[in-house]
Amino acid sequence: MQRIEHIGIAVKNLDQAEAIYEALLGTASYKREEVASENVITSFFKAGQKIELLASTTEDGVIAKFIEKKGEGIHHIAFHVDDIYAEMQRLREAGFTLLQDHPKKGADGKLVCFVHPKGTGGVLVELCTDDPEAIISNP
Amino acid sequence: MQRIEHIGIAVKNLDQAEAIYEALLGTASYKREEVASENVITSFFKAGQKIELLASTTEDGVIAKFIEKKGEGIHHIAFHVDDIYAEMQRLREAGFTLLQDHPKKGADGKLVCFVHPKGTGGVLVELCTDDPEAIISNP
Repeated sequence: MQRIEHIGIAVKNLDQAEAIYEALLGTASYKREEVASENVITSFFKAGQKIELLASTTEDGVIAKFIEKKGEGIHHIAFHVDDIYAEMQRLREAGFTLLQDHPKKGADGKLVCFVHPKGTGGVLVELCTDDPEAIISNP
Repeated sequence: MQRIEHIGIAVKNLDQAEAIYEALLGTASYKREEVASENVITSFFKAGQKIELLASTTEDGVIAKFIEKKGEGIHHIAFHVDDIYAEMQRLREAGFTLLQDHPKKGADGKLVCFVHPKGTGGVLVELCTDDPEAIISNP
């Protein structure tokens, strides 16, 4: 893994959380993006790497369930990898459990894959790399 | 805040967690450091910025209490700031609650101050800057 790509923070109310993080970081959100397949709306801040706020768009979405169980807070750490297929293979061979067999489309033009937190001391780890199709459609 | 300085992860067993993170990141821990005032022993990995594993050195330390309540996992996000005094003042004026009135010595040669998670959507935020005294004693 080359570097931390972003940190994802689960929030209940995106408007309120954006206002809080704008005040905290001293910089405004640079975009919102809905990931319909995950029932989530995201908001991104630059902080060296990125901070991603995640709010659920449905009552039973993955972020709604996370907040119900653990409360608002950090949801995952995402690492940038140049070759997500090679890194997934390396992690499988090292004994980690991946939540996807193949990379899937994430927010912000990324292909992503998650590592199960049971193998990482309770941390949901995301691998992400630039999605070639997103680069083509957003040149 | 200029950039994310590190992510802190609370763990029960530092030896086991180091082995896991060495396998996950594909790189070894570059140092261990005990912070006696916090009853904690830390282990650092480079990942663009740093990842800090935190294990309690006492049964009632702050990390032991965190794990008892929430389980192992991400404990805080630390942001680098050039001027910690100015940033503390800016955050106080913006309505955030700081856990220290003055910066205190942290691990890895830093002066640090924490922001209460109640004001940040459940995220324990750490400000850190290079400790001038640590630079003098470790030139």
